[in-house]
Amino acid sequence: MNTEEIRQLLEDVKEGRVPTDTAADMLKDLPFTDLGFAKIDNHREIRTGCPEIIYCAGKTEEQVVAIIGEMLKKGNNILATKATREVYKAVQSLCTEAEYHAAPGIITIRKKEVRSTDTYIAVVTAGTSDIPVAEEAAVTAEMLGNRVERIFDVGVAGIHRLLAHRDIITGAKVVIAVAGMEGALASVIGGLVDKPVIAVPTSVGYGASFGGLSALLAMLNSCACGTAVVNIDNGFGAGYLAGMINRLE
Amino acid sequence: MNTEEIRQLLEDVKEGRVPTDTAADMLKDLPFTDLGFAKIDNHREIRTGCPEIIYCAGKTEEQVVAIIGEMLKKGNNILATKATREVYKAVQSLCTEAEYHAAPGIITIRKKEVRSTDTYIAVVTAGTSDIPVAEEAAVTAEMLGNRVERIFDVGVAGIHRLLAHRDIITGAKVVIAVAGMEGALASVIGGLVDKPVIAVPTSVGYGASFGGLSALLAMLNSCACGTAVVNIDNGFGAGYLAGMINRLE
Amino acid sequence: MNTEEIRQLLEDVKEGRVPTDTAADMLKDLPFTDLGFAKIDNHREIRTGCPEIIYCAGKTEEQVVAIIGEMLKKGNNILATKATREVYKAVQSLCTEAEYHAAPGIITIRKKEVRSTDTYIAVVTAGTSDIPVAEEAAVTAEMLGNRVERIFDVGVAGIHRLLAHRDIITGAKVVIAVAGMEGALASVIGGLVDKPVIAVPTSVGYGASFGGLSALLAMLNSCACGTAVVNIDNGFGAGYLAGMINRLE
Amino acid sequence: MNTEEIRQLLEDVKEGRVPTDTAADMLKDLPFTDLGFAKIDNHREIRTGCPEIIYCAGKTEEQVVAIIGEMLKKGNNILATKATREVYKAVQSLCTEAEYHAAPGIITIRKKEVRSTDTYIAVVTAGTSDIPVAEEAAVTAEMLGNRVERIFDVGVAGIHRLLAHRDIITGAKVVIAVAGMEGALASVIGGLVDKPVIAVPTSVGYGASFGGLSALLAMLNSCACGTAVVNIDNGFGAGYLAGMINRLE
Amino acid sequence: MNTEEIRQLLEDVKEGRVPTDTAADMLKDLPFTDLGFAKIDNHREIRTGCPEIIYCAGKTEEQVVAIIGEMLKKGNNILATKATREVYKAVQSLCTEAEYHAAPGIITIRKKEVRSTDTYIAVVTAGTSDIPVAEEAAVTAEMLGNRVERIFDVGVAGIHRLLAHRDIITGAKVVIAVAGMEGALASVIGGLVDKPVIAVPTSVGYGASFGGLSALLAMLNSCACGTAVVNIDNGFGAGYLAGMINRLE
Amino acid sequence: MNTEEIRQLLEDVKEGRVPTDTAADMLKDLPFTDLGFAKIDNHREIRTGCPEIIYCAGKTEEQVVAIIGEMLKKGNNILATKATREVYKAVQSLCTEAEYHAAPGIITIRKKEVRSTDTYIAVVTAGTSDIPVAEEAAVTAEMLGNRVERIFDVGVAGIHRLLAHRDIITGAKVVIAVAGMEGALASVIGGLVDKPVIAVPTSVGYGASFGGLSALLAMLNSCACGTAVVNIDNGFGAGYLAGMINRLE
Amino acid sequence: MNTEEIRQLLEDVKEGRVPTDTAADMLKDLPFTDLGFAKIDNHREIRTGCPEIIYCAGKTEEQVVAIIGEMLKKGNNILATKATREVYKAVQSLCTEAEYHAAPGIITIRKKEVRSTDTYIAVVTAGTSDIPVAEEAAVTAEMLGNRVERIFDVGVAGIHRLLAHRDIITGAKVVIAVAGMEGALASVIGGLVDKPVIAVPTSVGYGASFGGLSALLAMLNSCACGTAVVNIDNGFGAGYLAGMINRLE
Amino acid sequence: MNTEEIRQLLEDVKEGRVPTDTAADMLKDLPFTDLGFAKIDNHREIRTGCPEIIYCAGKTEEQVVAIIGEMLKKGNNILATKATREVYKAVQSLCTEAEYHAAPGIITIRKKEVRSTDTYIAVVTAGTSDIPVAEEAAVTAEMLGNRVERIFDVGVAGIHRLLAHRDIITGAKVVIAVAGMEGALASVIGGLVDKPVIAVPTSVGYGASFGGLSALLAMLNSCACGTAVVNIDNGFGAGYLAGMINRLE
Repeated sequence: MNTEEIRQLLEDVKEGRVPTDTAADMLKDLPFTDLGFAKIDNHREIRTGCPEIIYCAGKTEEQVVAIIGEMLKKGNNILATKATREVYKAVQSLCTEAEYHAAPGIITIRKKEVRSTDTYIAVVTAGTSDIPVAEEAAVTAEMLGNRVERIFDVGVAGIHRLLAHRDIITGAKVVIAVAGMEGALASVIGGLVDKPVIAVPTSVGYGASFGGLSALLAMLNSCACGTAVVNIDNGFGAGYLAGMINRLE
Repeated sequence: MNTEEIRQLLEDVKEGRVPTDTAADMLKDLPFTDLGFAKIDNHREIRTGCPEIIYCAGKTEEQVVAIIGEMLKKGNNILATKATREVYKAVQSLCTEAEYHAAPGIITIRKKEVRSTDTYIAVVTAGTSDIPVAEEAAVTAEMLGNRVERIFDVGVAGIHRLLAHRDIITGAKVVIAVAGMEGALASVIGGLVDKPVIAVPTSVGYGASFGGLSALLAMLNSCACGTAVVNIDNGFGAGYLAGMINRLE
Repeated sequence: MNTEEIRQLLEDVKEGRVPTDTAADMLKDLPFTDLGFAKIDNHREIRTGCPEIIYCAGKTEEQVVAIIGEMLKKGNNILATKATREVYKAVQSLCTEAEYHAAPGIITIRKKEVRSTDTYIAVVTAGTSDIPVAEEAAVTAEMLGNRVERIFDVGVAGIHRLLAHRDIITGAKVVIAVAGMEGALASVIGGLVDKPVIAVPTSVGYGASFGGLSALLAMLNSCACGTAVVNIDNGFGAGYLAGMINRLE
Repeated sequence: MNTEEIRQLLEDVKEGRVPTDTAADMLKDLPFTDLGFAKIDNHREIRTGCPEIIYCAGKTEEQVVAIIGEMLKKGNNILATKATREVYKAVQSLCTEAEYHAAPGIITIRKKEVRSTDTYIAVVTAGTSDIPVAEEAAVTAEMLGNRVERIFDVGVAGIHRLLAHRDIITGAKVVIAVAGMEGALASVIGGLVDKPVIAVPTSVGYGASFGGLSALLAMLNSCACGTAVVNIDNGFGAGYLAGMINRLE
Repeated sequence: MNTEEIRQLLEDVKEGRVPTDTAADMLKDLPFTDLGFAKIDNHREIRTGCPEIIYCAGKTEEQVVAIIGEMLKKGNNILATKATREVYKAVQSLCTEAEYHAAPGIITIRKKEVRSTDTYIAVVTAGTSDIPVAEEAAVTAEMLGNRVERIFDVGVAGIHRLLAHRDIITGAKVVIAVAGMEGALASVIGGLVDKPVIAVPTSVGYGASFGGLSALLAMLNSCACGTAVVNIDNGFGAGYLAGMINRLE
Repeated sequence: MNTEEIRQLLEDVKEGRVPTDTAADMLKDLPFTDLGFAKIDNHREIRTGCPEIIYCAGKTEEQVVAIIGEMLKKGNNILATKATREVYKAVQSLCTEAEYHAAPGIITIRKKEVRSTDTYIAVVTAGTSDIPVAEEAAVTAEMLGNRVERIFDVGVAGIHRLLAHRDIITGAKVVIAVAGMEGALASVIGGLVDKPVIAVPTSVGYGASFGGLSALLAMLNSCACGTAVVNIDNGFGAGYLAGMINRLE
Repeated sequence: MNTEEIRQLLEDVKEGRVPTDTAADMLKDLPFTDLGFAKIDNHREIRTGCPEIIYCAGKTEEQVVAIIGEMLKKGNNILATKATREVYKAVQSLCTEAEYHAAPGIITIRKKEVRSTDTYIAVVTAGTSDIPVAEEAAVTAEMLGNRVERIFDVGVAGIHRLLAHRDIITGAKVVIAVAGMEGALASVIGGLVDKPVIAVPTSVGYGASFGGLSALLAMLNSCACGTAVVNIDNGFGAGYLAGMINRLE
Repeated sequence: MNTEEIRQLLEDVKEGRVPTDTAADMLKDLPFTDLGFAKIDNHREIRTGCPEIIYCAGKTEEQVVAIIGEMLKKGNNILATKATREVYKAVQSLCTEAEYHAAPGIITIRKKEVRSTDTYIAVVTAGTSDIPVAEEAAVTAEMLGNRVERIFDVGVAGIHRLLAHRDIITGAKVVIAVAGMEGALASVIGGLVDKPVIAVPTSVGYGASFGGLSALLAMLNSCACGTAVVNIDNGFGAGYLAGMINRLE
């Protein structure tokens, strides 16, 4: 049921062709499918054209499979994050085209082609250990139809490595800066480019990094303009938002 | 020994039929059974008519079984929370009627019927991952003789899912709102209904959710009136309190 | 000195018309003016076309006046944030066109016209007390050439107030959500619109709001997609980033 | 405009007597009055019969007076919390019947009589210094039509003081326990009574009380059943919720 | 080498019978045995007559065995805390008299008799789950020659259980109060008795107990006089200090 | 009413000479005087022979004066802590013998002589800035009949200053160690003496001392045996407990 | 009394020319002068040749003047930190040569010339607001006989400003990096130079800078080698340590 | 490519012998080797003469082996920290000379001799459990060509053990103080020696040590001059910085 159909229904109510109660029921049931333990948000498709997204952590294997099974009926692309290899195997037995991205723990299913943008998102990491989070951002953005350029392990302790990639970073429409420890990468990039920077603190580090708190606070306090921050290790959120910005016209 | 018997004993003291020391001993021993490692609170029955409740975490299997064995002698209903399946098996060998609720890790034993209320408690969760905590609340309330309605996975990121269940939520005598991450569900429900809302933050989330701290703080700072909060993941506490309110006359 | 002039100088070096050392000196001095206590970043103009920006907190009155005096020589627009009325008076004696925005504590000086965008930024607050931070965002964005729509006091505890402004919020190219206390506004807006949402936690609240920590954590943990967060009370940062996104083509 | 009138309008839309756009406008404006900086929630009256409530902290004197001025037009009772004496004086010049409760900083205006309940709320404090927060709870509950009994300075360090008031506490329909420092009062009361206990941590204390954090955590971790917690120093919230529970039938 | 021998050596230095350097070397090596990875504090025996104490956590099995082996040469009693059963087994193969106290994870070796005091220490716990920490305190105090009375599971949520043991608690020379969760036990006992109370917060609890922080803060903020606090789960420290106080004359 | 009188009353109840209700009333009123805003604990005198103690912070001037006025009727000594000079002046007009100890902000009134102990308490500070807290401990202990020796400014950064006072410290029956910043004094003293050490963290310091948190945590984690800790800046608590220990026989 | 005199005294003891007790007294009194509230560490002079240092915060005006008065008797240079202008005026009336450094709040008195090093310390700040802390470091180092080069306002958000001063920074023997907010300066400098970097977090910032915590954590987690951190706003500590390193041979 | 070669290339550009673009490419690729997931910083060798350093935590076994394989091509010494035995085995199959230091988890490969300093670094620990971190510091410093003296288990609770090693500590050019729990060792050493002290907090402890936070805060707040702090458990950082200082001339 798309926006046009909804408009039609409202006209029908106005003309008396459909009783108020019936319409209310139809509309009430419309925007999600109720599995009891989950309400699948069908409405998102109308609003965004996005693939369906499932956050797997805290859901049982059975729940994830049931949700994806329901979603596949509509023929959409699917993106499932924070998924273990066990969950992937269960999904694979449901849908053989499912792909697993091991570093970020993402399952993707491509049912229809997504046209990619000409502009691109630069995904930059401070270290090698930040790559899983960066890949979560990159794969998410790609599934949403964005071109992505990856620049990994260019942290500020050897700033010439970052400066060497200056061109590709400044050429992006939006930049995702992924860093743990002291999280300085976001500030330095923010000072170099005149583009929106989405900063992703990671839990990489030990001791007084306090599970990513150090990088999180540093990024929130960045003295560089044009930076905003997502949750620790939230590559998905950064990829989604950057994709949204990259596709703005 | 019920309230009437206690009153009788006091009269006996006054009339000199029972020496002060004897009465003191009887009263001192009255309200609990001493197992050494545990003092079972027999007095609760007089006060509340509730089933006995055991918090299993941190107790050995032997201790839980010994406590339940002692309680069963009185023929009461029993509710044991935060119980592993191993503990359940040990209890089952003691009492075959014991039931296990796997999601919340609850053992229940029903020795006598509990009449349920006409009014009901609505137990609402933001996500699928919050269900175990919600079930802890729901099962607790049901064991205490309350009717419960469950509405799961209606978090604020797709607020139409919540609004679609508005009727059943506003029809409750008291609402339990269970949410992790940003815990916004409690505020939105608090703004929709004119009923007491018991908010339960959960440890669902990662990174800057800091084990449920994020949802806890959000719920404590709710700008909606009529909301109070229990400990993170404390479904039991919410179910108990909501049951108490639901049964008020 | 603009980008073309810099390119020319480099050619001169290559052709031997300018010795390396001379050029190094020229370039070294180029991108900022050194006042000793401050290095004014002249380079920003080349990169962004933005007004000069001064963060006044922690600077003495004399320092702010000296910096603005230096900047005015270049004929640019000026935006000074976190400025007290005393600082404003000192600036006014230097430049009578200086305007003071009392709620956010901002000084603006408009030396040249900035053409505003057709698309707009929606600045939304949960409460009345959040207005000063929201105004910091709005004035910043306007100085950077953006059209801004303000919607104040539509927090989630009375969600019909928010829904009543749904059209104007969904019509924006980017939304700034400003909220203290439990910060739920960002999640609810994030669930309603398919646009980038910049969330600004404020220090509005008391007790367990811990100076804005509650709203900050809630916003970082938002279950809504497409949201990122700036520092507590950082209206400027949100306005700057939103402006950057709004002007993307 | 009451619920009946709203229903009528919807019928008019259905019958075509009122165009959709007109109705939308009427409904959009209905539930609140827009002062720009504040959206007064007129809808609350329909839902709850409550007095209007204004949280004064963070609002300018002018804003508070404008909001109250608008509210007074409807002839409702008014409750303004966290108000300084200066704000009170400004309100008084608008409405001479305004009363000021100095300890909690509350302004009340009684335009119509509120019938009080037979059942009562017990408001109990651990110390003398907790009284301002307790009075905020008590005055709020009274304005909402509840009978209140006050028992002050009966903290657990001299538990005989608490036990001496056992009867009046157990006779309440709901209890509000107000305590700073170690916040043990809530647990001890929770263990004594079989009624809902609303615990209010206060910022009374120093050093490792960390502004009320100590009492807050203690109350959240209470081993007593039937307890829930509101924000630090949030007497209003406790009074509102307790009143809601006390008036349940 | 005892105090007398040390005094003699100093006389020898004064009389020139022992060169300064030689004496310095003798004294330097005196008060501890150097195993490289550990310096065994032989001096403690001179000062206190106490058994040797080893904190096993973070030491390898080999290190613990080597330290105990060295200590056994002097014929003293030995107390090893935070020891796993594996460590116990290794120690047992060295010394068959070694005993293992499983709940607290303590190894004791009694080489000489310790005469016990007439006065006693009361060790009181709020719940059953606090027993391991309480046993660490009790066994430590007993090894140091103190009589100990144990009263377990008398938390404040059923205060009659605590009051029933009032006599034995008030009869102690010093009381150890062991509690997790909200830690209210210490305040209530502190208000009942006029004896030093050593409060031991435990990590028993979940959610906002934050690993014992809740009980720790509550105990530090106790409004009862005569209370001091040791580290979370530090039964040893409480037992040692209480023993020291109990043996004061 | 002393312990003997209470026993007599109970006999009267048993013999029927006093009706139960009357006795209940007498006993209920016995142990405290009710001023409404405060319940003065008369019972403490029976239990402890201590002077009355008032914690002034958070009480109004009128409340403090009323409480002291009531206490003076019984002819006891009085100790009022955390009192400003304004409060002192108000008390002085009530009782000219009141003395003010400016550094700790203590008011004392001596109505009857207290015999001092032969043994003494050593009160030791790390720095000069810790003296106000140390004086709170010392004056409290002295009011409770203890001899006190003061050793100030002997922090571990110049450990020879501490070692120079080793004799007077080891000669004490109990030691109070007062330190801010890194709080190392408690551990070093704990390692030097074989006596109970009460550690008092102070809020002296800046930056990462976080209001005394640094010293508090250091003292709780002391590797020295025989140490317990009171709240930050709680000189009173340390003085009270040390006095209690010093007077043990 | 210098090292030679001490050696002589020890010889006298050995030869019997000075009784043990007398020598003990002389040595005990030697290394500090006891003012009661302060023990002035005379020994530091022997060890370090440093000026005397007084930390003024938390000391009364009278105490500071008394300490400096005592110190002046020895003719040493004096450095007093965290001093208000009021304290300075009091000191000035004692010693007219006293100088006041207003930004850091330092008083210096130069009684004898200090020869400066050839090598230098670079003191670098991220912003203008960090200058007071940087000046505390610089003045301290200069008083200790070090040459200092100041480079202010070269934070990473405009990294060309920092790179422009690369030569002077890499030419230093040790670098002090002073920054608030996200504290990234330390990491970037640490990556540029192969010299010890002393990082000083400042409390400059707001919101989630949490009084300097953000910069502190970032600096502790720096991925650059060769960096260590001092307390928030501790310019003195950084200047002292850097001076110590700079003067190493 | 060394510094001389770089200078030559720049001359070639100036003379037109090498086109700008070619040179840019050469220089861009110069200072690191790009493995995609890692950019090996070849430039460090030019700057420091140090061995290559790999932080293994968070890198896969394959990544570590690939990085080391690349590094070995240049014939440098290699230091890999936080490496498990599994990683070591994989490295060993690549290079049989690889050594494993089990306590700190360090892999070293010595391809060329490093001449050691005459001056030395003293590495001191408070306890036996701190040794792994201390060894990380010591091995790092030794690989960088420094002589190291180890003094273990001399914590302040038995300060005579520390004083017995005073000579070796004061004879060092720089001291590394490693301690968990209350971290007092750093302050006591800082007060004894007139040398730079690098303090390393460890996560040794439990309860309120909060993973090393206690020791970290204590060390940051040290009242001893000349101390700076590295991250919790960061033996590597301390060893690297101390080595840098020890080798200063």
